[in-house]
Amino acid sequence: MQPAESVLFFFGLFAMVAEAMTAALAAGRRKMDWFGVAMLGCVTALGGGSLRDMLLGHYPLLWVKHPTLLLLTGGAALLTIALARVVHRFHYLFLVLDAIGLVVFTIIGCNVAMSMGHPLTIVVVAGMITGCAGGVLRDILCTEVPLLFRSELYASVSLVTGALYVAGNHFGVEHVAVVIGSVAFGLTFRLLAIRYKWEMPKFIYEREGPH
Amino acid sequence: MQPAESVLFFFGLFAMVAEAMTAALAAGRRKMDWFGVAMLGCVTALGGGSLRDMLLGHYPLLWVKHPTLLLLTGGAALLTIALARVVHRFHYLFLVLDAIGLVVFTIIGCNVAMSMGHPLTIVVVAGMITGCAGGVLRDILCTEVPLLFRSELYASVSLVTGALYVAGNHFGVEHVAVVIGSVAFGLTFRLLAIRYKWEMPKFIYEREGPH
Amino acid sequence: MQPAESVLFFFGLFAMVAEAMTAALAAGRRKMDWFGVAMLGCVTALGGGSLRDMLLGHYPLLWVKHPTLLLLTGGAALLTIALARVVHRFHYLFLVLDAIGLVVFTIIGCNVAMSMGHPLTIVVVAGMITGCAGGVLRDILCTEVPLLFRSELYASVSLVTGALYVAGNHFGVEHVAVVIGSVAFGLTFRLLAIRYKWEMPKFIYEREGPH
Repeated sequence: MQPAESVLFFFGLFAMVAEAMTAALAAGRRKMDWFGVAMLGCVTALGGGSLRDMLLGHYPLLWVKHPTLLLLTGGAALLTIALARVVHRFHYLFLVLDAIGLVVFTIIGCNVAMSMGHPLTIVVVAGMITGCAGGVLRDILCTEVPLLFRSELYASVSLVTGALYVAGNHFGVEHVAVVIGSVAFGLTFRLLAIRYKWEMPKFIYEREGPH
Repeated sequence: MQPAESVLFFFGLFAMVAEAMTAALAAGRRKMDWFGVAMLGCVTALGGGSLRDMLLGHYPLLWVKHPTLLLLTGGAALLTIALARVVHRFHYLFLVLDAIGLVVFTIIGCNVAMSMGHPLTIVVVAGMITGCAGGVLRDILCTEVPLLFRSELYASVSLVTGALYVAGNHFGVEHVAVVIGSVAFGLTFRLLAIRYKWEMPKFIYEREGPH
Repeated sequence: MQPAESVLFFFGLFAMVAEAMTAALAAGRRKMDWFGVAMLGCVTALGGGSLRDMLLGHYPLLWVKHPTLLLLTGGAALLTIALARVVHRFHYLFLVLDAIGLVVFTIIGCNVAMSMGHPLTIVVVAGMITGCAGGVLRDILCTEVPLLFRSELYASVSLVTGALYVAGNHFGVEHVAVVIGSVAFGLTFRLLAIRYKWEMPKFIYEREGPH
C-alpha cells in the first residue's frame, strides 16, 4: 500500500464504524433483534465494496481477506445499542464521519477498478457503487425506498469526487495531491449539501398503471 | 458476432431504452430524484443480464465492457422526465418494445449460457433471468412485490421462448430460422397475453403465521 | 463425497423441499401466481448457497451444476398449491425439517469455505449465510423486513453450530463425530428455541430522522 492509500484505508475504518453505527439505529427503528443489528451493520458498512467486487469479479472480497472487519463493524453496531441514549448527541459527528466514508470509499473503489484496468467510466461507477450501495442494501433490508434516491446530494458527491480523482490521475497530477484534493473537495461538497439542503430535483409522476 | 446475433443485439438496444424509460416512470411514482431515476433505469435495463452473469460467473459484465450502455440507459431514463407528459400516449409502443426486450434478452441470455457449455435447463433458466430479473430488481428498489410474480404471462413467455430456441438449436435447425422463429413466437405470445389478459392462476393462501 | 457428506447432502434435499414448501405458503399470502410460487421456492431453497458462492467466488453454483435441484424445489413449491388445505396440519413436521435444513446447510456451507482454504471466521460466516440467507431473500421478494432479524433464535443457532463444527475439525476430532455432534447440538438448540420461544433481545429505537 502506498502512503496515501494507507491513510485512506485508516480513515475508511472510522467511516465503516460510523456507517455500522447509523445502520444499527435504522435496525432499532425496525425493532430488530441484536443479531439483526450486527448483521445490518456489517451489510451497510461492507456491502458497497462487496457489491462492487461481485460486479467486477474481483475476488476475494475485502472482508473475506480480512474477517476482522466483520467483528469491527458488527461490534460497532452492537455497541450502538448500549450507547443508544446518547448517540443522537453526536449527530453532527456521524454526519461528518459518514461524509468521510462516502468520499474515502469512493476513492478506494476507483482504485480497485483502476487496478483491474477498467475504462474511466467504469472506474467512476465503481467508486460510486462502493460509496453508496451499502446504504441502498440497508434500506432494502429495512424495506424502505432507498434514501439515496430521494434525499440531499449523496451519490452526486460520489460521482463528482470520483470524476475529479480519475481526471487528476489521468492528467498525471501527483498522486498524493489528487487524493487530498478529491477528498477535500468531496467532503466540502457533501457538508455544504447537508448544511444548505441541496437536493437533486425530484421527478414526480402521478399517473397510475404499469406505464 | 454472427449476423443473427448482431440484429438481436441491435433490437436489444431499443429494448434497453424502452425498459429504462418505463423504469423512470416507476421512479417518478416513488418521487425519486433525478439520480434515482437514472440509476433505476440502468438497473432495470441491465440488471437481468448482470444477475445472470454473476450467477454464472461470466465476467466481465456487458456494461463493464461497454460502459456506453450506462450512458444510453441512464440517459433514456433522464430523457423520460422531460417527456413525462406525453409518454403515456406511447403506451402501446412501450408494451411492444418491452415485449421485444423480453424475447430478445431471453435469447441473448440463452446464447451466453450455451457458449459456456451449460446444460439445457440452465440455458433456459439463464434466458429467463436475463429477460425478467431487471424488472424484479426495479420492483425491489421501489419496495413493491415484483409485478412479475403477479401479472400477465411474462416469465412464462420467456420460458417458452427459451425452450423453443434451445430445442431448435438442439435439433440442428438452421440458426437464423431458430432465432426468427423464437422471436416471432415469443413476441406474438406476449402481445396476445397482454391483449387477452392471459394470466397464470394465482395461489391465494390466507392462513396467518410463519407456516 | 465422504460418507458423512453424502448423508448430509441427502438430508439437505429434504430440507430444500421443506424450505421451498414454506416459501410457497409465503407466496400464497402475497397472492403470487404459480410462476411466482415456483420461483420463490427455488430462491428460498437455493438462495443461501448461491449467495455464499457469489460472495466467495465459488463457481459453478450448485444448481448450475445440478439443474435437477431447480425442478425439485420449484416442483415442491407447486405441489404445495395442491396441498394448501392440509399443509398446516404438518406444521411441526415443517418446523423440524426447516431446523434440519438450517443445521445441515450451515455445515455444508462451512465445508465449502474450508475446502477453499478460508480462515475460520469466514468458514463460520459462510455456514451462516448458507443456512439463513435463503429466508432473507424470500422476505425481501415479499417486501417484508426479514423474519430472521426479528424472531426466535435462528441465525444464532447457525452461528453456534458452525463454530462447534469448525472447532471440532480444528482440534482434530474424528470427522463423523464432529458432523453428528454439530447436527445433534444444532437441531436440539433450534427446537428448544422454538419450544420455549427463546429470542434474542430486541433493540428498539424510537427517535426519528436519519440518525
